Amino acid sequence: MEAQPLTIRANADKAIVWENDRLYLLDQRILPTEEAYIELNTALDTAHAIRDMVVRGAPAIGITAAFGVVLAARTCYADSAERWREFILADMEILAASRPTAVNLFWALDRMRKLFSEIGADNPEPRLLREALKIHQEDVAANRAMGALGANLIEENTSVITHCNAGALATGGYGTALGVIRSAYAAGKISMVYADETRPWMQGSRLTAWELAQDQIPVTLLTDGAAASRMAQGGIGWIIVGSDRIAANGDVANKIGTYNLAVAAKYHGVKVMVAAPTSTIDMSVATGGDIPIEFRNAAEVLQWGGRQIAATGVDAWNPVFDVTPAALVDAIVTERGVVLSPDSKKMADLMGI
Amino acid sequence: MEAQPLTIRANADKAIVWENDRLYLLDQRILPTEEAYIELNTALDTAHAIRDMVVRGAPAIGITAAFGVVLAARTCYADSAERWREFILADMEILAASRPTAVNLFWALDRMRKLFSEIGADNPEPRLLREALKIHQEDVAANRAMGALGANLIEENTSVITHCNAGALATGGYGTALGVIRSAYAAGKISMVYADETRPWMQGSRLTAWELAQDQIPVTLLTDGAAASRMAQGGIGWIIVGSDRIAANGDVANKIGTYNLAVAAKYHGVKVMVAAPTSTIDMSVATGGDIPIEFRNAAEVLQWGGRQIAATGVDAWNPVFDVTPAALVDAIVTERGVVLSPDSKKMADLMGI
Repeated sequence: MEAQPLTIRANADKAIVWENDRLYLLDQRILPTEEAYIELNTALDTAHAIRDMVVRGAPAIGITAAFGVVLAARTCYADSAERWREFILADMEILAASRPTAVNLFWALDRMRKLFSEIGADNPEPRLLREALKIHQEDVAANRAMGALGANLIEENTSVITHCNAGALATGGYGTALGVIRSAYAAGKISMVYADETRPWMQGSRLTAWELAQDQIPVTLLTDGAAASRMAQGGIGWIIVGSDRIAANGDVANKIGTYNLAVAAKYHGVKVMVAAPTSTIDMSVATGGDIPIEFRNAAEVLQWGGRQIAATGVDAWNPVFDVTPAALVDAIVTERGVVLSPDSKKMADLMGI
Repeated sequence: MEAQPLTIRANADKAIVWENDRLYLLDQRILPTEEAYIELNTALDTAHAIRDMVVRGAPAIGITAAFGVVLAARTCYADSAERWREFILADMEILAASRPTAVNLFWALDRMRKLFSEIGADNPEPRLLREALKIHQEDVAANRAMGALGANLIEENTSVITHCNAGALATGGYGTALGVIRSAYAAGKISMVYADETRPWMQGSRLTAWELAQDQIPVTLLTDGAAASRMAQGGIGWIIVGSDRIAANGDVANKIGTYNLAVAAKYHGVKVMVAAPTSTIDMSVATGGDIPIEFRNAAEVLQWGGRQIAATGVDAWNPVFDVTPAALVDAIVTERGVVLSPDSKKMADLMGI
């Protein structure tokens, strides 16, 4: 299929675009220096884009995978109008294997798979596309709802610290943690957003700073090691982060460094808010210890821009996520409501189990 | 004066070299990719080298400043054999203004200044050079003594985390924190050294990993935000760091991120050791709150290798040091002895005040 130009301006709220019957992803590996979209026509390319972090952030990965299923269905239905349901499973396995920690990926694949039986003998693409678009739209609506709920928790005239990027770029739009920050800022409550630069991938410097600056929300970058020192100076009301998977007891897996930040927050009496849609909650894992934590190549720590930083022959320990125990979390904010001081009972109540 | 080639192999123990009647500094801005020395012939060049971090680390800054006084004396005595003591004060002020936090700088300048009266009508250079070389040698001896004392505190078969570079490169040789680690490793006590990469200047990746690898001591790099997560996994006995200035009550100024690490250590029951010569202890400042903390250009956080990482127009908060309160420090190790759970009384006893 010939490449089709996408003419929209690069925009945090348009990180995932379905247009011209194909998927476009804003390439988050090269932001903010370059603003470019990658066009995807197959499930395999979509899986590689997730693995290579063209798109990242748990809700965004889920939405992208849903569109990946649409692309898979097109190919598989063209191959065989009768047997596409068999053929598509291999593509869905490849999508599922792209990244292990964000549960939204598996949630979205499950949701798409559930439709297969109702499609009958028709071409599955229109029905699956409707569902993928619905997943996308629901995510934006969830973020708006969380934004309002989370902002309610924040006192007037405070500064906050966020980690990684849990913004429009990490979701269908508006953001989870940055959605709360956007809503609280619009309500005149936030004086400064401190963004951890978030080594090794620099989501804070490259993505969070970029999207907050686009919205003219005041943002100051910190090295990850400076956050505790900033807390000690006072004026920080909340740490606000997203999540890649929340266990049934309220333990939170999120970008490496979140646990460190939560420990420092506890020491300084700063509160910790986790904003995540219920699609991020995995009631099948009892505690954070059961969440699979992805390790990525040591080169992410040892190199920058393809050039070696560190001494040669030295190794790095590079887990991409860590687990913050529920005891360090003051509030989990979802589109269905807020859970204060989360535990298994409160999480089950939220999820209606 | 014509440039003289220095033929020694780049070596962490030879970061500061006096040879050919001039000063050579191993350029720590470009390690480990390039190993090159910079030749210095004047006090002004020496001050610029300290400011620009050709050399860094509190003891190394002190030693370098002492050699800078020798270079200043040469020029000032050539200008006037009678009035060199007046002329040299301006050079010493420039050296003193090069960096504000490391107290070893002021300590070394004071020690050199005290000799001016005993020199009489002679050329001051030989006497001042003897003193600078003595400061250098005493620092190495102090590090060896600290190494033995610190290693005694470490249990068998443990891993440790260090931050920044408090090694041979940061001192006259052998290192403070890395001196303790070298001694403990030689005694068979340490199974792995985890080195925080130490944003923004990457002293851990670039310098600590380089010098430990040279000595074939096993080292694994961590992003600064991953250290708490590593502690949670167990097996870490000690955090071992150096210091830029220790207050009279035992509060410790050190590289940004040290405080963060100490807070996380406290939460995990990991002990914190600060290794520093008594020249780093400043009994004239009552608490850490009185220690001047240097802020450096935001570009150190926003750029890498001269290229912008972060979104344009965004600011960064870039304090270079932080203060760890004495309550979070389990041991201060000096060449005169060890202070456990430091406080004002114990520090005064150590310093004989």
